Amino acid sequence: MNITINKNKAELIATVTNAIESGSLIRVQRMLNALHPAEIAHLLESSPPQQRKIVWELINKENEGPVLVELGEDVRTSLVEEMDTGEVIDAVKNLDADDMADFLQSLPDTVISETLKGMGRQARERVEAVLGYDEDTAGGMMDTQAITIRADVSIEVVLRYLRMLEKLPSHTDSLIVVDKYDHYLGVLTLSKLLTSQPEDSVAERMNSNHKAILASSSSHDVAALFEDRDLISAPVIDSNKKFLGRITIDDVVDVIRDEAEHSVMSMAGLNEEDDLFAPVLPSVKRRALWLGTNLATAFLAAWVVSQFTETIESAVALAVLMGIVPSMGGIAGSQTLTLAIRGIAVGQLVKSNTISLLNKEIILGLINGILWACIVFLISTLAFDNISIGLVIAAAMLINLLVAPLAGVALPLLLRKFNIDPALAGGVILTTITDIIGYTAVLGLAAIGLPYLNNYFA
Amino acid sequence: MNITINKNKAELIATVTNAIESGSLIRVQRMLNALHPAEIAHLLESSPPQQRKIVWELINKENEGPVLVELGEDVRTSLVEEMDTGEVIDAVKNLDADDMADFLQSLPDTVISETLKGMGRQARERVEAVLGYDEDTAGGMMDTQAITIRADVSIEVVLRYLRMLEKLPSHTDSLIVVDKYDHYLGVLTLSKLLTSQPEDSVAERMNSNHKAILASSSSHDVAALFEDRDLISAPVIDSNKKFLGRITIDDVVDVIRDEAEHSVMSMAGLNEEDDLFAPVLPSVKRRALWLGTNLATAFLAAWVVSQFTETIESAVALAVLMGIVPSMGGIAGSQTLTLAIRGIAVGQLVKSNTISLLNKEIILGLINGILWACIVFLISTLAFDNISIGLVIAAAMLINLLVAPLAGVALPLLLRKFNIDPALAGGVILTTITDIIGYTAVLGLAAIGLPYLNNYFA
Repeated sequence: MNITINKNKAELIATVTNAIESGSLIRVQRMLNALHPAEIAHLLESSPPQQRKIVWELINKENEGPVLVELGEDVRTSLVEEMDTGEVIDAVKNLDADDMADFLQSLPDTVISETLKGMGRQARERVEAVLGYDEDTAGGMMDTQAITIRADVSIEVVLRYLRMLEKLPSHTDSLIVVDKYDHYLGVLTLSKLLTSQPEDSVAERMNSNHKAILASSSSHDVAALFEDRDLISAPVIDSNKKFLGRITIDDVVDVIRDEAEHSVMSMAGLNEEDDLFAPVLPSVKRRALWLGTNLATAFLAAWVVSQFTETIESAVALAVLMGIVPSMGGIAGSQTLTLAIRGIAVGQLVKSNTISLLNKEIILGLINGILWACIVFLISTLAFDNISIGLVIAAAMLINLLVAPLAGVALPLLLRKFNIDPALAGGVILTTITDIIGYTAVLGLAAIGLPYLNNYFA
Repeated sequence: MNITINKNKAELIATVTNAIESGSLIRVQRMLNALHPAEIAHLLESSPPQQRKIVWELINKENEGPVLVELGEDVRTSLVEEMDTGEVIDAVKNLDADDMADFLQSLPDTVISETLKGMGRQARERVEAVLGYDEDTAGGMMDTQAITIRADVSIEVVLRYLRMLEKLPSHTDSLIVVDKYDHYLGVLTLSKLLTSQPEDSVAERMNSNHKAILASSSSHDVAALFEDRDLISAPVIDSNKKFLGRITIDDVVDVIRDEAEHSVMSMAGLNEEDDLFAPVLPSVKRRALWLGTNLATAFLAAWVVSQFTETIESAVALAVLMGIVPSMGGIAGSQTLTLAIRGIAVGQLVKSNTISLLNKEIILGLINGILWACIVFLISTLAFDNISIGLVIAAAMLINLLVAPLAGVALPLLLRKFNIDPALAGGVILTTITDIIGYTAVLGLAAIGLPYLNNYFA
């Protein structure tokens, strides 16, 4: 009996790495095929390219499909590219309809039609039903395997019917009640089924208030519904209320995980499906966009500075201190931006409460601005024994810390309007704004103010 | 029959806001109490302080407990602070043991003991069992309500026993098989139960390979297990294999969501439980740490620049261009850092494959360094009509783009060794490194190299 959580993953990776390095491949093979497909997938994702190839070669044929399903898209594609069509078909033919549909969508059309041809009629129709929907919709997430029953039969008949089946579809927590045209009427939970008397009818015990999900709903809304209602599964229907399939919590967990990772990775200009050990050249290409954009904005900031070379020549202390203002603006702005992006993602920040958030963030910016302006004034004045420089930096700081939260709230909302992902573009645009305002404020105020201030404090 | 996903959340928030503003509180009250507790919680989290207070006042007493459970910690605490002990006890007394334990842990000790005193013996013992474990462990996540059965009875006896119950505990997908000392033996899934013949014995049909989780396991490991194995529930045992309770997928989803949000928010120095509409003063305090740390590192960078004022005075173009090098280093480093932090979080990056990642990232850094060094060389040389300046900036860029990925991989691993959260501290330390190296490289190379280069290219 296996009574504890699976062996530490780090240990597993280390053990396999060592075994491969010492050449005991038969041992590795035995070890690998005793693992759960999810663990094999994790091991593949944690392996550098050469080791990944060896591990993949050692996996039993019947494990290939389930492992491929568990892999991130990047790693999966790299493995599938090395397989021929026959191998792909063999690997995927026994998968669930939703898993197979997901998988097929990432393949070339010829492979899709070949794979579909190789399947039995019922299985093919199931997969085609799912393939008809975008993979980010309820229709694309659903599995068409489900047990449907009629409302007018007795609990005893249902129990007898189930007993004839060898097993129920995975994650079955309820049976779907439909009429003779397959219209959705409600669900009979297994819990209700088991606590009912045999002579009760399904109609009496079923829950006709259980929500069904329209096939066109977005996967984001589906995930929110599952989270809010603590669901294990939910029926999917078309606009005529015809029952199409079921969405189960395991697929919803994947959506939640992907959405969350998407934010983290996008903010660094990466993709949530990125392979940790991706080959170098594609990585250079992927990261180039981000670095190139940043270089452009850095040169923009440099151009702002170049407009004030005379001012800098007259007080080189400015060259020393000017970087502090955009830097603080970038940090303050990105705090507001992160809060706003999260608020939008979870649906807390909407049009009707934007003004409230803006008010709060601006007051916060004002207090922060005054606070940090005083601190930089003191430090700068003491460091350079020059009140004028201190005043210029402090005033610029106040301006930038007021602009930063404004940009942090407004930017993601504007980007959303233009259908641009705020997590992806927000950070770059924000720091461009805080850099330009920051440098302009420091050097502009210095250019205008320093002559007067120097007179006054001289 | 409710056949679509709940009304758009943004609409809901807008409707309630309008209704409150127009003073039709009775309409709001009716609307509110028809909602699911999770929807009410969402509405509270999306409301600015004044509106939040009104919404909370309008909620029926029996909804308060379930709503409090669904709220983020920050918002929950602010509401509970306004309640007296009696109200708190009334609100929470009907919650599940795990929800109540979670909730109680955030309250003062006197309220905890008062609440426990007000409960029946069985319920109290249940909550106390959960309270005995840290909330980030399997023990702290578990619910003690579960149906346990013996291995030697027949399926028919089990079915008869269940029929006597009014309902099964929520998320029951399997019955727990224990011996007479409550030692865990395995599970009988409802699916197996329903497809068995009445005369079969539990022993024949149960799954004795189903993993049980040690109560001391971390919630992170529990979530990984649920994700890998697509579980709906899992039994929790102590080190003597005694059955303690069950963890269900709904609580695991919360852990997954929290972990993911933790990364996003930490990287901006925020907390995943932060309230979007938190009062201003506490927000100033919370964000001050981050801004203060950044100010310190910005002054550190300024100090580096100040060591080279003579160099800058001799070539003011340096003041214009020097910011580009640390900026690019920061971006390149944070890409690697984000990849590494994610790799550590999901368990893909471990000791045994660190060298492989480091190799890949350094080669990537070298290629990126050469590429972007060439580009800045061209632009800088053209902009200032000065090959020497172009060469200095390009060389500094190459150095910094080699240091950045090194720091991006090494930092999170080092921080983990000292038990510091890399998502929280990694970004600040990384940009401090790339700023200092960046400025030192530009200005240091300029100080040493420009005199010679200028001679050569003059």
